[in-house]
Amino acid sequence: MAADAATAEMAAASLCDDLEPATTRTRIRDVLAAVAARAGERVVVGGWVRTGREQGKGSFAFLELSDGSCAAPLQVIVDASVHPLARLTATGTSVLVEGEIKEPPQGTKQNVELKVSRVIEVGEVDAAAYPLPKGKVKIPLETLRDVVHLRSRTNTIGAVARIRHQLAYATHSFFNENGFLYVHTPIITTSDCEGAGEMFQVTTLFSQAEKTEKELKENPAPSESDVMEAKVLAQEKGNAVAQLKAAKASKQDIDAAVAELKKAKENVSRLEERSKLKPGIPHRDDGTVAFENDFFKRQAFLTVSGQLQVETYACALSSVYTFGPTFRAENSHTSRHLAEFWMVEPEIAFANLQDDMNCAEKYVQYLCKWLLDHCREDMEFMVKNFDRSAIERLQLVSSTPFVRISYTKAVELLKNVTGKKFENPVEWGIDLASEHERYLTEEIFKKPVIVYNYPKGIKAFYMRLNDDQKTVAAMDVLVPKVGELVGGSQREERLDVLKQSILFELSEMCFTATLYSFEVKELWILDAGLPLEPYEWYLDLRRFGSVKHSGFGLGFERMILFATGMENIRDVIPFPRYPGRADL
Amino acid sequence: MAADAATAEMAAASLCDDLEPATTRTRIRDVLAAVAARAGERVVVGGWVRTGREQGKGSFAFLELSDGSCAAPLQVIVDASVHPLARLTATGTSVLVEGEIKEPPQGTKQNVELKVSRVIEVGEVDAAAYPLPKGKVKIPLETLRDVVHLRSRTNTIGAVARIRHQLAYATHSFFNENGFLYVHTPIITTSDCEGAGEMFQVTTLFSQAEKTEKELKENPAPSESDVMEAKVLAQEKGNAVAQLKAAKASKQDIDAAVAELKKAKENVSRLEERSKLKPGIPHRDDGTVAFENDFFKRQAFLTVSGQLQVETYACALSSVYTFGPTFRAENSHTSRHLAEFWMVEPEIAFANLQDDMNCAEKYVQYLCKWLLDHCREDMEFMVKNFDRSAIERLQLVSSTPFVRISYTKAVELLKNVTGKKFENPVEWGIDLASEHERYLTEEIFKKPVIVYNYPKGIKAFYMRLNDDQKTVAAMDVLVPKVGELVGGSQREERLDVLKQSILFELSEMCFTATLYSFEVKELWILDAGLPLEPYEWYLDLRRFGSVKHSGFGLGFERMILFATGMENIRDVIPFPRYPGRADL
Repeated sequence: MAADAATAEMAAASLCDDLEPATTRTRIRDVLAAVAARAGERVVVGGWVRTGREQGKGSFAFLELSDGSCAAPLQVIVDASVHPLARLTATGTSVLVEGEIKEPPQGTKQNVELKVSRVIEVGEVDAAAYPLPKGKVKIPLETLRDVVHLRSRTNTIGAVARIRHQLAYATHSFFNENGFLYVHTPIITTSDCEGAGEMFQVTTLFSQAEKTEKELKENPAPSESDVMEAKVLAQEKGNAVAQLKAAKASKQDIDAAVAELKKAKENVSRLEERSKLKPGIPHRDDGTVAFENDFFKRQAFLTVSGQLQVETYACALSSVYTFGPTFRAENSHTSRHLAEFWMVEPEIAFANLQDDMNCAEKYVQYLCKWLLDHCREDMEFMVKNFDRSAIERLQLVSSTPFVRISYTKAVELLKNVTGKKFENPVEWGIDLASEHERYLTEEIFKKPVIVYNYPKGIKAFYMRLNDDQKTVAAMDVLVPKVGELVGGSQREERLDVLKQSILFELSEMCFTATLYSFEVKELWILDAGLPLEPYEWYLDLRRFGSVKHSGFGLGFERMILFATGMENIRDVIPFPRYPGRADL
Repeated sequence: MAADAATAEMAAASLCDDLEPATTRTRIRDVLAAVAARAGERVVVGGWVRTGREQGKGSFAFLELSDGSCAAPLQVIVDASVHPLARLTATGTSVLVEGEIKEPPQGTKQNVELKVSRVIEVGEVDAAAYPLPKGKVKIPLETLRDVVHLRSRTNTIGAVARIRHQLAYATHSFFNENGFLYVHTPIITTSDCEGAGEMFQVTTLFSQAEKTEKELKENPAPSESDVMEAKVLAQEKGNAVAQLKAAKASKQDIDAAVAELKKAKENVSRLEERSKLKPGIPHRDDGTVAFENDFFKRQAFLTVSGQLQVETYACALSSVYTFGPTFRAENSHTSRHLAEFWMVEPEIAFANLQDDMNCAEKYVQYLCKWLLDHCREDMEFMVKNFDRSAIERLQLVSSTPFVRISYTKAVELLKNVTGKKFENPVEWGIDLASEHERYLTEEIFKKPVIVYNYPKGIKAFYMRLNDDQKTVAAMDVLVPKVGELVGGSQREERLDVLKQSILFELSEMCFTATLYSFEVKELWILDAGLPLEPYEWYLDLRRFGSVKHSGFGLGFERMILFATGMENIRDVIPFPRYPGRADL
């Protein structure tokens, strides 16, 4: 058939008259936004019943319907003549209904309502079996974590989902507006130089072993004598060929014998190959696991940060950012740690520490302002239910320039504090603890604070060494409620200085004791010929057209905790992962 | 110190006068967009030299400078009096320069240029060592994959990065505009019901084993006789207590003996515990790996799709989508497969198959139109260098309603094709191969085609069974150049039908032969008591307030291949992962 004829013939097919027509549904958000002018309009609305109650001796029912498009439910009125009311009122019931928008009672501040004329679809609920409680009964957030597949139907998790969405969207908007390119850094990494914490390993060795074991069960590996026997046979076939050749036999006979020899030899290799098959994880002769048999022919891990990789893009395309999942295999059971969480990591070329701070401040303020502009209703829900100061905090942060002080100054301030005793004593050189960070931002300055120029000993190898040789160009943004929200630095762009830092880092890994001076360690390392190889690609960025560059990381869930005032990080990510727990 | 005093004192500190001032840099994109009116303006520009050449007997140099903000480079002119020219001209050199915008020569179509007055910073390049070739020399894309940390400095990978960014941003814009919430589905999953392909396992067992082995080396596990000895000692201590008690010794003496007994008992438990420590991966008594010792106390994997999890959010918040990395541990070495790739997966409640198709069509058209509006220059680069029809294709797809035909019709059409012989014979019931898909969209219809209602045997268990009992409400969007771009379906919302499908799926896994009828299998399964447990959470969505819902998945890299005309998927993701390879 010619293609043209087919097109003509198929024009009708495109109407899809064999399919159910599409649904025209109005979101509850848009219904609620309807002013009196829309009263009388007919719309189709779908959602889940939050609370339902029969009224007027069972002559009609009120349903509070939610479809996730906004925090407030829509009040829906159904007459008993339209649908059996008892099948509609259970919490969790889904309905798709057609009805008329009704003006709210005059003089009240109530929302519009929907008077239902037709119930199109119902998904019923056996109230006794439904794990979520009815209507406004409060259920502890801990309990909800056991029904992670249903908890998004609660007001709280719904509000968090909308705030999370807006923060993600605002993130992309901010960076796009400012000329940053979104780069997807790898999740699976073989980079040996992260060192930001314990890593999960990614492997197919277990499934490979399972397959091999199954295969061996069905078809056991040949024994040594099986292989021997095959070898003897091959030897005989070889001798036969030699004899035929010596006897100057016909080409045909010799060819036949050679073919048999070839077959026998192939059999030997096959048996030898299979005789090596062993159940279990493959090991090398020295007893270590043979990761060269793994999917990537080496050990591979889940990323702990996309920074090092995104630097390769910054050193080519100037302003970039990554926003993706990161992982820590740490045995932390706190309300602030997850094994899987999301990070936003911008990286900027031709940018020093001040540029970095400016970007971080602008970004955090943008997020706060965005929530005030786009999430008022959900933020008010948070204020009412979780944190009275949540909106005030967003207003403060979005409108106040951040204080900027050096680590040295910050330590001085904290040491002079008299009104409070810290659990961790303050001394120049320590890593500031959460209690110190929060005191700086909540008590001393009462606004966001950027602390910069930290002692090099407590910071990562890639941070730029300052001229004082004691501090590095690092900065942390501290905010009320959560303390550290952003951590960033100017990266070391000088090849020789970076090499030194890496050597020092490597030496730290090799020496458990700190008895040795830096010089001794360095000598020892050079002597030991420790491999810089895993860092070579990173060093290349400094070898070829190196630039000053800076970046920072913002823990996305921490930002949500800060914004919402929620207390536990497990409640602000849809599917929390932590030791012993990875539901769904 | 009072907090107020501190604020006052620190006001000055906020000036950061101990820091290098921030950089004020103008992006090359904005310089190039400058009209004649900006001529004479002074700007600071940073970037990497694409090509550089000395002119006028070494009296000045032309540098073509790129900073990734656009495809075109900026022509920069430096006089020898400003900076030694030889240090600037090598490809890959980075410079931060200040200069004056110059009008292009009158009557030409050239861009504006920059006359440099000051070179602020230079990152030199040893041209002999630099892995990328000079200027316009073409380097094969395969070769570039070996320098994944530098390849973003090439025009091609830079253009792909900008197109990728725009497609990601357009994705978020589209869904946000249409009231969808972005949901981060989990990367690490314990869900047993994905079945979409081989999975990577996520584990800490290897690192745990390594730690144990190290520990055992430093402090060997106690032998059986060590434990025995300790037990004997404890026995003796017990006897001593008994004797003292019998002899009515002083409380003091008895207490002392009891304390010793307690210590001895503790020693026994400690030794018993440590005697169980074994090198290597922990195994159960039956020889299988003891995954209950793993981080999540069970086997965990990398997700192959966020669909099932995102359904839990759709069945609460109506319109949602996920956009994240997904994984396949398949040994594929093709130009179309990666072990790690990104997927966009919307899921819509109260939506049937037509709603699903409408959403997919609108989304794909939006992406195409977005690229035409926001990526003209990079698309023109693609047309010039890789695919002459790339822009035409975007125009076609963005402006033409998609043809919609049933699978049955599509098979009829393909069976009637006379002008071409397919490698895979066409018969009702087969999964359409790429050659069929491309023939439909490229030859028969010459536009995007949505094929719907596929045989249930070739589709996933969660797709809604049609009334004919033979097909399911699935749909694929086929486009020229790549074939299948989108795959979606209406999900089975009926509890009993879904259960049947799951049972059938499980039976398929258990029976390698297909000798058994469905009824026999079902009986066998019920008899065998196969666990539906892993599917219970998914079934709950149908038990409690079930709704019609639909969704689809778009392979993000496949969309980039479609848009750019690039041939190999390894070149459209920043850090490609495939068997044997996971650089960085």
